Amino acid sequence: MSRLDSYIRRLVAQRDILNHVATDLDLPRDGPILEIGLGNGRTYDHLRELFPARRIVAFDRALAAHASSVPPEADLVLGEIRDTARAFAGGGAALVHVDIGTGYPDRDAVTLTWLPDLVASALAGEGVAASGLPLDHPALQALPLPPGIAAERYFLYRRAVR
Amino acid sequence: MSRLDSYIRRLVAQRDILNHVATDLDLPRDGPILEIGLGNGRTYDHLRELFPARRIVAFDRALAAHASSVPPEADLVLGEIRDTARAFAGGGAALVHVDIGTGYPDRDAVTLTWLPDLVASALAGEGVAASGLPLDHPALQALPLPPGIAAERYFLYRRAVR
Repeated sequence: MSRLDSYIRRLVAQRDILNHVATDLDLPRDGPILEIGLGNGRTYDHLRELFPARRIVAFDRALAAHASSVPPEADLVLGEIRDTARAFAGGGAALVHVDIGTGYPDRDAVTLTWLPDLVASALAGEGVAASGLPLDHPALQALPLPPGIAAERYFLYRRAVR
Repeated sequence: MSRLDSYIRRLVAQRDILNHVATDLDLPRDGPILEIGLGNGRTYDHLRELFPARRIVAFDRALAAHASSVPPEADLVLGEIRDTARAFAGGGAALVHVDIGTGYPDRDAVTLTWLPDLVASALAGEGVAASGLPLDHPALQALPLPPGIAAERYFLYRRAVR
């Protein structure tokens, strides 16, 4: 399988999982959505469509989004994500989507020393996390994936009650 | 349709068209493949799988590819594509794949003032071009797309006999 094939499968998994969260899962009634790794802003755009009533706060190291997908200034947090997103610990997020894998296992291993704890801290009790990297954390319980998504292609969790 | 949905459809169209070229179309027997817009290198990786016997020359303004998809030095041309790819005019390419749309219609309109002529010049007679932007040029005849790909999502041409 080429890297193009693999990328398409990963994006489809991401999209289908977010649709599944919006359609089939209960989210905490209040609380924002955190989009960690804004990138081009395509997934931010998708989240806006799925969750029009929620505040969506987007994080990235630097702004690289298409002009049509730049969040309002109050909902855009630029800088090292490890530092900036920590301010949302206890922030009671209803949903965290995080897609900051690099395709380099050594770099991703460093990310995974801090990312699971950051996500668990940011979520409200019973909040949901969708992630391109596995989030191994005692407060995060893996949820079943929607049909057609291979295990390990994308990851879905619910936070324990606080 | 969100920008994520649209992007997935465009990538699938790109992949399916390249597979169609490899499986169903006759290409000139000799001549390299030009990958104009290397980017992350995912499509370069796909082309390598589809055409293992061809030289593939990749162009980009600057190197942004994943380490696993960096072409050999002799097959990587960095700099303004408008200038660098001109050196391949008359180069007799068997296939040109070009995906350098920006999502900004005004910028793409500038690209389209020079790109169709550059592609037509680089191709051998009866060479094939697959493109994310329409290439309006008297020497390039649109080919039918494989099933399931909406018109205007991706573009496929064959160059007239030289």
